[in-house]
Amino acid sequence: MKVMILGADGYLGWPTSVDLSMRNHELLLVDNYTKRELIKKYNKSPLVEQETIENKINLLKAKNKYISFKNIDCADFKKFSKLFKDFKPDAVIHYAELPSAPYSMFGHQEGWKTLQNNLQSTFNLIWCIKTFKRDCHVIKLGTMGEYGTPNIDIEEGWLNVTHKNRKQKFIYPRQASSLYHTSKIMDTDLLWFYVRMYNLRVTDLMQGPVYGIKHKNNIKDEKLFPIFTYDDIFGTVLNRFVVQAIANMPLTVYGSGNQIRGYINLIDTIKCINIALKNPAKSGNLEIYNQFTEQFSINELALKVKQALKKIDINVKIKKIKNPRIESEKHYYKAQNKKMKKLGLKPSLLTDDVIIDIAMFIQKHKNKINKKIILPQTNW
Amino acid sequence: MKVMILGADGYLGWPTSVDLSMRNHELLLVDNYTKRELIKKYNKSPLVEQETIENKINLLKAKNKYISFKNIDCADFKKFSKLFKDFKPDAVIHYAELPSAPYSMFGHQEGWKTLQNNLQSTFNLIWCIKTFKRDCHVIKLGTMGEYGTPNIDIEEGWLNVTHKNRKQKFIYPRQASSLYHTSKIMDTDLLWFYVRMYNLRVTDLMQGPVYGIKHKNNIKDEKLFPIFTYDDIFGTVLNRFVVQAIANMPLTVYGSGNQIRGYINLIDTIKCINIALKNPAKSGNLEIYNQFTEQFSINELALKVKQALKKIDINVKIKKIKNPRIESEKHYYKAQNKKMKKLGLKPSLLTDDVIIDIAMFIQKHKNKINKKIILPQTNW
Repeated sequence: MKVMILGADGYLGWPTSVDLSMRNHELLLVDNYTKRELIKKYNKSPLVEQETIENKINLLKAKNKYISFKNIDCADFKKFSKLFKDFKPDAVIHYAELPSAPYSMFGHQEGWKTLQNNLQSTFNLIWCIKTFKRDCHVIKLGTMGEYGTPNIDIEEGWLNVTHKNRKQKFIYPRQASSLYHTSKIMDTDLLWFYVRMYNLRVTDLMQGPVYGIKHKNNIKDEKLFPIFTYDDIFGTVLNRFVVQAIANMPLTVYGSGNQIRGYINLIDTIKCINIALKNPAKSGNLEIYNQFTEQFSINELALKVKQALKKIDINVKIKKIKNPRIESEKHYYKAQNKKMKKLGLKPSLLTDDVIIDIAMFIQKHKNKINKKIILPQTNW
Repeated sequence: MKVMILGADGYLGWPTSVDLSMRNHELLLVDNYTKRELIKKYNKSPLVEQETIENKINLLKAKNKYISFKNIDCADFKKFSKLFKDFKPDAVIHYAELPSAPYSMFGHQEGWKTLQNNLQSTFNLIWCIKTFKRDCHVIKLGTMGEYGTPNIDIEEGWLNVTHKNRKQKFIYPRQASSLYHTSKIMDTDLLWFYVRMYNLRVTDLMQGPVYGIKHKNNIKDEKLFPIFTYDDIFGTVLNRFVVQAIANMPLTVYGSGNQIRGYINLIDTIKCINIALKNPAKSGNLEIYNQFTEQFSINELALKVKQALKKIDINVKIKKIKNPRIESEKHYYKAQNKKMKKLGLKPSLLTDDVIIDIAMFIQKHKNKINKKIILPQTNW
């Protein structure tokens, strides 16, 4: 299959590229290193400095010569559409969005950049498909954060409503708690609109917070690992917790810690991408999957890290701090996640071993941890 | 009250400016003539060429000296925020959006310009309020088109859902049938997000298609009339029908003509704006009104024009043409519109006299009608 991966340099983009390169696909990786630039601009850094894709791509080419990389901004329609038209992909995996809630809430400029980049990259992709290859399958990374924390069960993308004895199936009503997550509500709406108009084929993966560093258990070469951030802007919570533990800092829980979310191992993200590739949305359909495997509160997550690392004699402290975000700290949360399992996903759950494995990687790079970039600096 | 009117040059912006100037408000009108430029660019023209606001504003200043105009792009944050900061409005009436469904569906450039302009102007306004005057009341023009044509009743902005014995009130789930209308779903979502985060005060007026040329029955000076377009891109349906009738063209009904919408007289739009100004949303609230007074199918609308104009001996033909849009042509439609009436709106309905009055105005300028710009040229 000819597959384009937009945002191939990211935490999910690179392991997706590595994994798909082993599967006989013809791959075109695209990135313009925006996230790297932002990480520098805001004085953050990943745990391990990453080589450029230009430097790493030979690792993949050694096993699959049909792989190339283009440094292009997907928001630049002229360049992007030329690339698309020449490659004519069967599927596009769209990660080319700014993924940070705190970044999007930082100031006017950061907020607008998030909205503009995320919508313009999606809009350009839609127009390329509409113009050059109507049956191309889009797999877009969405987020469980689109749903927010409603007082009813979160269904898988759609909600059947009965109202005054009449029935209507709606895309599940969503309200998010950051501008970033709101931009993802909008890109879903944008895709859904064009799916209806032009019979496009779109899969939207509503993913929960991801953790981990390996996309497969047996990967050893660190060049195949993704960028690993743990800072307040670009880090995700479990990875940050383990870094705090290794750095002898208390795990900082925002607010009450009763906020519940659905989590997923990076290993499972990659499995889900493969499942989505093999089960493309039909023409005129938006397939929505809730892509997480387990629900935890932040308190439970912190406790899991504490208990796991006790086994390797690391004594973990947990500290509650004022919540820098505006979000419900006590809420109902029950989200459906059957569809991926029905298609064959066997989840890799958050066991002590998984946490210890992440800790081992961080331990190896312990001297590179910058303690100053971890605590939250952006308030809503 | 200090009121800013964004998009003051438009079909609604100018009559709003004229009306509010009679009511002792301190007014700052803002426009950058984007719509005039687009009308020229796409070889359309209004029925009567408009003078600039710079030339017309003395008419208003004669009765109220606290009125000024700035030619500024609301999407330009630097200029717009300086203006806002200096004026510090109590209320902002936000019309600064590109309002055309066909324009938004024309091509990539037009689509992106619609999305970008409509979201960026709204985003900039939000940031000005958040930064400089948190209690400023936003009145944003929305559209009934956000709701689309669901198979259940359209409630006024919100929907109470009972699901698996639990309850949640959601913003009414919306799905539109043009990119323009989708951009309005997004600006509602954007405002609702920031209302929740920063306790802003926002009124969203979900308005149906407007008709008419006078904002009050007794207005005679045509300089106080708004721009009147009847072309395929910027015209609205009833105004276009009356122009076709006067030009001895058949009224062109798109598709089956069974599409039902809620309509409103320009006179009532202005009444609603005044009602919204006097009943501001409370801090932390998004007040949504369905702003229309009567529901008709397109067939009924065409028939009304035919019957009214028969009274002044104009023989009207009606012709069905292939629908250039992708939309349901047979659907359930029952929309709620109680809230404005509860606050005192006495509707000015679509009587024969109202249609004849519009026809008289058009008759006066009959020689200026350009028949070539009326039929649809943009297909979805």
